Amino acid sequence: MKILKGGVTKPRGFKANGLNCGIKRSGKPDLALIASETPCSAAGIYTRNSIIAAPLVVTKNHLRNAKAQAIIINSGNANCFTGHLGYVHAEQMADFSAKKLGLLNTDVLVASTGIIGKPLPIKKILPAIPALIDGLSAKNGALAAKGILTTDTFTKEIAVSVSVGGKTVTIGACAKGSGMIEPNMATMLAFITTDAAINPACLRTALKNAADISFNSITVDGCMSTNDMCLVLANGLAGNRTISTGGQDFRVFAQALNHVCLHLAKMIVKDGEGATKFIEITVTGARNERMAKTTALKIANSNLVKTAAFGNNPNWGRVAAAVGSLSIPVTEQSLKIKFSSFKKKDIRISVDLQLGKHSATVYTSDLSYEYVRINGDYT
Amino acid sequence: MKILKGGVTKPRGFKANGLNCGIKRSGKPDLALIASETPCSAAGIYTRNSIIAAPLVVTKNHLRNAKAQAIIINSGNANCFTGHLGYVHAEQMADFSAKKLGLLNTDVLVASTGIIGKPLPIKKILPAIPALIDGLSAKNGALAAKGILTTDTFTKEIAVSVSVGGKTVTIGACAKGSGMIEPNMATMLAFITTDAAINPACLRTALKNAADISFNSITVDGCMSTNDMCLVLANGLAGNRTISTGGQDFRVFAQALNHVCLHLAKMIVKDGEGATKFIEITVTGARNERMAKTTALKIANSNLVKTAAFGNNPNWGRVAAAVGSLSIPVTEQSLKIKFSSFKKKDIRISVDLQLGKHSATVYTSDLSYEYVRINGDYT
Repeated sequence: MKILKGGVTKPRGFKANGLNCGIKRSGKPDLALIASETPCSAAGIYTRNSIIAAPLVVTKNHLRNAKAQAIIINSGNANCFTGHLGYVHAEQMADFSAKKLGLLNTDVLVASTGIIGKPLPIKKILPAIPALIDGLSAKNGALAAKGILTTDTFTKEIAVSVSVGGKTVTIGACAKGSGMIEPNMATMLAFITTDAAINPACLRTALKNAADISFNSITVDGCMSTNDMCLVLANGLAGNRTISTGGQDFRVFAQALNHVCLHLAKMIVKDGEGATKFIEITVTGARNERMAKTTALKIANSNLVKTAAFGNNPNWGRVAAAVGSLSIPVTEQSLKIKFSSFKKKDIRISVDLQLGKHSATVYTSDLSYEYVRINGDYT
Repeated sequence: MKILKGGVTKPRGFKANGLNCGIKRSGKPDLALIASETPCSAAGIYTRNSIIAAPLVVTKNHLRNAKAQAIIINSGNANCFTGHLGYVHAEQMADFSAKKLGLLNTDVLVASTGIIGKPLPIKKILPAIPALIDGLSAKNGALAAKGILTTDTFTKEIAVSVSVGGKTVTIGACAKGSGMIEPNMATMLAFITTDAAINPACLRTALKNAADISFNSITVDGCMSTNDMCLVLANGLAGNRTISTGGQDFRVFAQALNHVCLHLAKMIVKDGEGATKFIEITVTGARNERMAKTTALKIANSNLVKTAAFGNNPNWGRVAAAVGSLSIPVTEQSLKIKFSSFKKKDIRISVDLQLGKHSATVYTSDLSYEYVRINGDYT
């Protein structure tokens, strides 16, 4: 696997663009478009929150045929808790983009992130779409990566290439993480492009597996957003034999996709609200994977563990108590806890439950004064 | 029901004392004893943490006959993660106290709170027990209440009386809450005395019911201690007809016990680490009580909700997202959220799920800079 410079426009046949349409007063890009020259197999994963924003409903609907060719994203407004009007606005974003791109409206997917509970400023978005399309270019991937940010402190891009059946397959991606938009919550968005030829069911499987060990293994504050979304478009221009589940081609592609998702997920944690530490928590010796992951997340979301990390205080008692608070049969004697140095910026916590053979790793940040300031200091 | 001044020594036949035996360098009381002149029906509830401290193991063991006559408590050291020696030390505290009081060792219960993972300084505790016993008096309830504190900022005592079958029954209690003992976690301890005549099974039922709506309905940071314990002693000196489950006598006693436990629980939250707000969260319209309580606790433990309270920011989006993050079938349309003024010190959050007829109320504090300082600032 080769690590390349760039992001979503690195694979063949993908263009992107980003600009400011007036949602962000700062003038920073707040509207982004990612488009393929040719139709794509497509797959998506979404927040498990039972309250989801309008763009997720529209995108899920448009993805029912597992095909898409473009994604339009706005930042600065989440189009969530916006009632029926929210769905109308999300559809308008897709419809108008599709018309200008010469596509079916179901070929365009929609994502939003930002303030909750305020109507989407659709009158600023629609008029900007023609210019957004005019500027579509393989050179403008970075502008799209900027256009999806909220208060992230840096853009999150990656591209890799692998050889699949003798052909070079490239995967590119960009993401945004847990930034705070006053007065509301953070959202994780990730958009992945690839020129691999791969059937939709297989693409969905690969994405789901990759998300489980990456986007679904990170936590900043244990609070689930209403807008989280990860989408992948595969246009097949690499000319490889179409990848189907199982087999070497799938393994190679899946491994590359895992790397892309994990890289983005770790960047999101490192850019977490007020984060001063990156904490990797590995639980081994669990009876099953669910026990391993539940335990790791319980430790990751313990405010006592997170503040201990912030305070450079390697406090195994807090880790043990977090594990014990789950109803799993651990004892003072059976539990094995190991820390790396808490003085470093990257911290490793290893816990062996000694109950079985399963393990899981999750990633989180610490709980700092800055987290409280960002999320509390409105007065 | 009459609210009285005082605490554990208010009921007939109870004496208490507290002194400093040298665990706390501050010289503040760190050893407490509560004793009845006559044998008592006794019941206890404990942390659900699967890793529990030695004194809990010893106390559970001594309570198997549902009888006890005294409780000895030390603060400053939790006697947790102290291996086999911890059990030996906890037994020594009970045995030596029992010998000096002329009781069986199983008549004495033991509790500890403070630092985790350091051997109990038993050489300081045992020599202090004779003086502790000599000072036992109905006047020294407040000293016992002081002796169980860690970094609580105030003592927590209450006493009430009710008429049970024509006799005046008194209940007294003291508690300590979530204070921080470097380098480890907080513990909730509560000790309740009563002169009611009540059979042990009935006493256990009343205590469990009272704890469910009080001690098990509060959270400061969602982190469960290894030492939490609530004990009740009933010596029967009120001379009432022995209370058994069901009937008016039980209802009156249970109501008074509920009041005592809820009052202590609310004081614990108000004295929570870094607390600047007292937050009451009521969830109605749930399909069952478990759904109501789980939802209320999810909101109470949301760092985004807690920081919003700290920042005087009535942020319904965060409450809705917390509810939605549970897999219950709520929608943007069905969910009803109400706030009291966030400017006040006491905040009420009401959520109607509109799914059923069950409800629950929990109590929590906000997440402040001070919480992070107390728990993180060791460097």
